[in-house]
Amino acid sequence: MPDQSARAAAAVDSRRLWEDLRNLAQLGARADGGVGRLALDENDVKARLWLVEQGRALGCSVRMDAAANVFLRLPGGDENLPPVVTGSHMDSQPAGGAYDGAYGVLAGLAALRAVHEARIATRRPLEVVAWTNEEGVRFSPGTSGSACFVGVRSLEETRALTDGEGISFGEAADACLARLEAQGVPTADFATPMSAFVELHIEQGPVLERAGARAGVVTGIQGVSWFEFTVRGTANHAGTTPRAARRDALEGACALAVALREQARDDADETRFTIGRFRVSPDSVNTIPDEAVFTVDLRDPDQARLDALEATFRDLAAGEWAGCSVEVTRLSRIDPVVFPDAVTGAVAEAAERDLCMEAPRLMSGAFHDAIHLARHCPTGMIFIPCKDGVSHHPAESITPDQAEDGARLLAATLVRLAEVA
Amino acid sequence: MPDQSARAAAAVDSRRLWEDLRNLAQLGARADGGVGRLALDENDVKARLWLVEQGRALGCSVRMDAAANVFLRLPGGDENLPPVVTGSHMDSQPAGGAYDGAYGVLAGLAALRAVHEARIATRRPLEVVAWTNEEGVRFSPGTSGSACFVGVRSLEETRALTDGEGISFGEAADACLARLEAQGVPTADFATPMSAFVELHIEQGPVLERAGARAGVVTGIQGVSWFEFTVRGTANHAGTTPRAARRDALEGACALAVALREQARDDADETRFTIGRFRVSPDSVNTIPDEAVFTVDLRDPDQARLDALEATFRDLAAGEWAGCSVEVTRLSRIDPVVFPDAVTGAVAEAAERDLCMEAPRLMSGAFHDAIHLARHCPTGMIFIPCKDGVSHHPAESITPDQAEDGARLLAATLVRLAEVA
Repeated sequence: MPDQSARAAAAVDSRRLWEDLRNLAQLGARADGGVGRLALDENDVKARLWLVEQGRALGCSVRMDAAANVFLRLPGGDENLPPVVTGSHMDSQPAGGAYDGAYGVLAGLAALRAVHEARIATRRPLEVVAWTNEEGVRFSPGTSGSACFVGVRSLEETRALTDGEGISFGEAADACLARLEAQGVPTADFATPMSAFVELHIEQGPVLERAGARAGVVTGIQGVSWFEFTVRGTANHAGTTPRAARRDALEGACALAVALREQARDDADETRFTIGRFRVSPDSVNTIPDEAVFTVDLRDPDQARLDALEATFRDLAAGEWAGCSVEVTRLSRIDPVVFPDAVTGAVAEAAERDLCMEAPRLMSGAFHDAIHLARHCPTGMIFIPCKDGVSHHPAESITPDQAEDGARLLAATLVRLAEVA
Repeated sequence: MPDQSARAAAAVDSRRLWEDLRNLAQLGARADGGVGRLALDENDVKARLWLVEQGRALGCSVRMDAAANVFLRLPGGDENLPPVVTGSHMDSQPAGGAYDGAYGVLAGLAALRAVHEARIATRRPLEVVAWTNEEGVRFSPGTSGSACFVGVRSLEETRALTDGEGISFGEAADACLARLEAQGVPTADFATPMSAFVELHIEQGPVLERAGARAGVVTGIQGVSWFEFTVRGTANHAGTTPRAARRDALEGACALAVALREQARDDADETRFTIGRFRVSPDSVNTIPDEAVFTVDLRDPDQARLDALEATFRDLAAGEWAGCSVEVTRLSRIDPVVFPDAVTGAVAEAAERDLCMEAPRLMSGAFHDAIHLARHCPTGMIFIPCKDGVSHHPAESITPDQAEDGARLLAATLVRLAEVA
């Protein structure tokens, strides 16, 4: 079996993978070198049609589901066994790069091609999936396709999401599905069984690059809580109101922000605390603000620490800040996911034995479709480094060698999980 | 002479003043009870035409100047002497109240009526002026009329200011002047000599109300500096970037804001420090901000203290804040003004001797047209309390008794300054 997985890794056509990446980046290409391909827009639909073509050329059967997720399937020796699935998403940020998501789909395609061309007969079928609307830019929240597939969100609520122009996810998905149907792509149900799911992705962070690692075994996905803090004071004239008579919402918000950040400061540098939005009203140079609203994005691999920090945050907010009151709302919460040894072990062994590659273990700081798949089947992820850890930006970048490393590791992992007949 | 000034105070028709306030508030009345009368808009023009009518009914000569300032003049015993002038502005904030500015003009009219009806013959002429675009909302910066009148800004640069719809101050002023000209109002030069200028205004702060005072002798206008601080870091993913790898512009901005505020904290509670605008980019929940921009409105009666604080602010900004660099820009600076004893003394004596009123001395925290007039002639101001110190808001409020107190004090002050023949 190790022989077969190493063979699959070696059979990856990294030149073709790089061509595919360049070609896909043309769909939604930006003048600044970035990619803006929003979920279910014309370029995203074209990307799906192109993927279907590639799959068929390789001898895959193709299917779609009601959330416009697209699957390519390479038959296994035992078609009664659930498939080993890989994939990611093809939509991007409006000013995004060519690799976030797209790389996972195209490297999956490259892995299936390698298995096919090396004539490796796996017991289980192999599939590549492109999940719909991971980014959540055009329709919010994101990870729509994977969330509907596993059932953590209903198709109805997802279809009702609307974009900035009032077009619903449902309308956009129907239009996309009609184009796929015209190409003879049949529809399948959600939640079809999977033997395992492995998502390959750029790290979107600096850890692997700083460690000089070629790939990483992702051990899970951090839990994340989003909070909104609203600090309420009294608007007044900046020139005429003595300090003692003020209830300055901005003063309270800054002091509270500093205090919250201090609480989240851990020696191990594992907890991630970010205030990303901060707005003040009336936002006038000479008016004391009556309201300041800011968000906190709090992440930690440890659920107990997330809970403890939330309790501390609520205690702090219950106090008075520059005479102002504070309201805390939890906007969302996703519990940490720990990937099972069955999958992380397969990735680690493929790295070590098939590729002689050191692949450190790390948690994912970002969401991925894998967070939902983890509820559905044994799931894991592989990361490759990206330049300066940058993503969601036109400057997002990987080298052809890095693209090859990840695709080879993915191919070997898939063969290990799918077993050679 | 005290007899005549006390007689003038007693002759104020406070009922009619209150009616005038109610009538003027109809021009630009808002559904919420506030007033939105922007500079040189249809309501502001109508207010000028109405003021001209009132002046003529009282036997005043009227005139206008190229900035659309309107003057009513009650003759004095010696028409060769420069007049004693009072007045304020009639434009308001978009969601303003009925008293900020308008009260000073209408109480001036009431004072002239009182002098006229009590047949008090002053040596110097008495004038009421309505200055154009004090608020600076439609055309920014404000205090346009008084700034052009005294020559601190040129008419040319003021005429070039444009509103949100691309209409210039010059076009709007010309249209207003044509309407006034059609009523036979002649044009006069800027910078005509004045013997004194006294502006009556609501305090727009809580000091008099908290002291239980009916009026205040304004000793000067605080100096004010406006700064903009731009904190620059690096945008990155909130979930994937360890704390040690961050340069978080919001973290730096909050820490800097707290430090600046601490430096401006004086025991006497005279320095006013306000951060009114605060913006962060890209303003996304899960992105570490790469830029945070905030303003500081800093006021102090003491020029040396303003200078020292500016130097301290620049020293602080030269440091590193959460790894970020900081740029400081001074947006504007107006030096403090101290009103001369000749005028503050006349106000204080009128309060004490003519009205048996305790009128504490206080600095003005807000700008007023008087800040420019102080460069032109001996200038002073009178404040009356307003409810909760609130202004620039539909809730801005004074009682009829308070309106009467201020108008009586103004009438007595004007007679004292204009001398009885």
